[in-house]
Amino acid sequence: MYEQYGFEPLETPAFENIETLLGKYGEEGNRLIFKILRRGEHAGTGEADLALRYDLTVPLARVVAQYQSELPRFFKRYQIQPVWRADRPARGRFREFYQCDIDAIGSTSPIVEAEQLGAVSEVLTRLGFGDFVIRLNHRLVLSGLLNAAGVADTQQNDALVALDKLDKIGTDGVADEFAARGIERSVAETCLKAFEVAPDERPIETLGRLERLLGSEERAIANLRAVVSLADSTAAAGKLRVDLSLARGLSYYTGAIMEIAVPDLAGSLGGGGRYDNLVGMFLGRDVPACGFSLGLERIIVVMTERKMFPAKVSRGAVDVMIAVLHENLRSDALKLAAELRAEKLRVDIYPDAGSKLDKPLKYASSRNVPVLAIVGEDEHARGEVAVRDLQTRQQENAPRASAAQWIAKRVRIEQ
Amino acid sequence: MYEQYGFEPLETPAFENIETLLGKYGEEGNRLIFKILRRGEHAGTGEADLALRYDLTVPLARVVAQYQSELPRFFKRYQIQPVWRADRPARGRFREFYQCDIDAIGSTSPIVEAEQLGAVSEVLTRLGFGDFVIRLNHRLVLSGLLNAAGVADTQQNDALVALDKLDKIGTDGVADEFAARGIERSVAETCLKAFEVAPDERPIETLGRLERLLGSEERAIANLRAVVSLADSTAAAGKLRVDLSLARGLSYYTGAIMEIAVPDLAGSLGGGGRYDNLVGMFLGRDVPACGFSLGLERIIVVMTERKMFPAKVSRGAVDVMIAVLHENLRSDALKLAAELRAEKLRVDIYPDAGSKLDKPLKYASSRNVPVLAIVGEDEHARGEVAVRDLQTRQQENAPRASAAQWIAKRVRIEQ
Repeated sequence: MYEQYGFEPLETPAFENIETLLGKYGEEGNRLIFKILRRGEHAGTGEADLALRYDLTVPLARVVAQYQSELPRFFKRYQIQPVWRADRPARGRFREFYQCDIDAIGSTSPIVEAEQLGAVSEVLTRLGFGDFVIRLNHRLVLSGLLNAAGVADTQQNDALVALDKLDKIGTDGVADEFAARGIERSVAETCLKAFEVAPDERPIETLGRLERLLGSEERAIANLRAVVSLADSTAAAGKLRVDLSLARGLSYYTGAIMEIAVPDLAGSLGGGGRYDNLVGMFLGRDVPACGFSLGLERIIVVMTERKMFPAKVSRGAVDVMIAVLHENLRSDALKLAAELRAEKLRVDIYPDAGSKLDKPLKYASSRNVPVLAIVGEDEHARGEVAVRDLQTRQQENAPRASAAQWIAKRVRIEQ
Repeated sequence: MYEQYGFEPLETPAFENIETLLGKYGEEGNRLIFKILRRGEHAGTGEADLALRYDLTVPLARVVAQYQSELPRFFKRYQIQPVWRADRPARGRFREFYQCDIDAIGSTSPIVEAEQLGAVSEVLTRLGFGDFVIRLNHRLVLSGLLNAAGVADTQQNDALVALDKLDKIGTDGVADEFAARGIERSVAETCLKAFEVAPDERPIETLGRLERLLGSEERAIANLRAVVSLADSTAAAGKLRVDLSLARGLSYYTGAIMEIAVPDLAGSLGGGGRYDNLVGMFLGRDVPACGFSLGLERIIVVMTERKMFPAKVSRGAVDVMIAVLHENLRSDALKLAAELRAEKLRVDIYPDAGSKLDKPLKYASSRNVPVLAIVGEDEHARGEVAVRDLQTRQQENAPRASAAQWIAKRVRIEQ
């Protein structure tokens, strides 16, 4: 699906130089980065020089800065790889998890946001999700609101980190966090009040209200209007909701931010946003960029709990097992296996060659194998192979010379 | 291919508890393990509690020990994941690289070795390798030869590490390493002489000579005879060569060991062997096991240098690019993109909506895109879309309503 949206595949190494990652994810992110000890003569110092990927966005920014001259002007890549965070594991939250990212480098056009919202919406819709909601906000709208509520510039990052937890800790919790960070309780209340959006308010209504409330951020609001309007022509149509309390924990966002939620999962299935300055931290000149990330394990958790996976016939890992009844017949069994594999079947040989059939028979049944091919001395003498259907328990003899084709036909009928 | 040989997929986490990895790979391996700093309150101690996978075998042994009650009696899994070694990078040697492993747990039968040699040989043959050689040896044969040459038990591990470098450092280098480790130079000479195998000696000839030379290791030699004989009925037929100097650096092997070499690569494309005690280190009781690993990057290096990759028509990442000539037409462009994607095409939208065609035209050409769809005001007014073939430079108008099908047909003809 990502390729259909014009994204090209990219993989990056599991670890980056530690200074590439530090300072890109906020104070909490810094703490949650897995750091790798120096090796060789420096091993004893206890210092770290490398760190494991914390997301796929910062490594991409590093790649873009490093290979700028070799990349197209508009670079669109997708990347599906694990990342690592020293977080407390919970439902759908692991210390190692896969992110499925799309990013577009080189354009400030709201078409970029709309296309990305369309791509992730189409992915989720195809997986069977009908009830997801995309929350949309803008970093400049957020800081405008914080300014209007009286949060000083120097305290805004702290305020964002606190606000980002609104889902988890509620309004009282946010007010407490504000207080703990030296922001007056009354300011928290003003902020939270400004952030209130009725659940059924349409995006353009919210944006209209916002324009009256916040004269200072015309361009940011116009940008959100464009994203909302363009996304309406994609698979994200009808899914967007402007949520002024959406903050996104990562510190690198500069423009539109978004997050996808379903009712039965705290946290999100994915999120993203515009980060026009991140590449500049490596390159020395800013390059516009925007990306979106889906969390694979969270999607799997919800799909599993909702029983969304297609109910296929449970099929074992092996189509045919070969039982070898005498040591002298092992080579013949291996040859039969090769012939069956040439028929594209998945073939296993019961490894203990012996005179008794009961063990391979019992084992093959327990492994859900549909067909057992029996290479025995009597059959061998007659130029035959015995073939037992493990569902019907019927056994027939096939001529050895054409046994593979004979068995392949039978297995294909079974399936 | 691995599934056709009866192996099931498995993935394991990137890091293991550090004590799971330490002591499993010999002294050099211990040094090359990437170690992860403790987090939280212990971060300042400079201690490591986790370490990155060094191979896929030790994590598998840990999994088998941990989940023994849930796994089948004969557990065959394949695993294709990166591993990390703090080695000096070189041609085909990276600090992060992919191993493609197969392992069979639960059986001592030489059928296991033969099937694995067959599987990796079929993989390499299908990739186009005709000239690989599989070197085969046995750990007990090796220690028998070392005993016969007068290397004390306590020095045998050191001797193996030195012998493992024979390829790289030659016979003089091995003699030097022996001396550095306190083993007499004359012993090194005796060893190396015993290890000599003429390049054209057939496996059964080598084994026959070995039986006369080494009365003490009858069972190991009989095991090698069985492996050689059974492998002859697999895709490994004719590829085996008994090489008495093959040592394999990893310390966990206990039985047959093997390595695949091609003339134009120092080092190997892959290797493996039997390790009947490794699971026991975690479980407290031994479980027989045998595995083989192919190195993805080394295979790619040789295939690239030999130009073995199929010469396909160079195809860009995008089938159709859409140029939007006016801001008001952006939504229409997004709708056209959705329709083209429903036709299974890979579609990109040139993000800057403007009145000039030259930029998207030049960009699409540079990106090797075959078709440019132009959404302009005149065409829009006429209910049409302009479609330009970027190879022939011919341009035609398609009716907007059926533009997606029209373009899809054209793109499929191009390819």
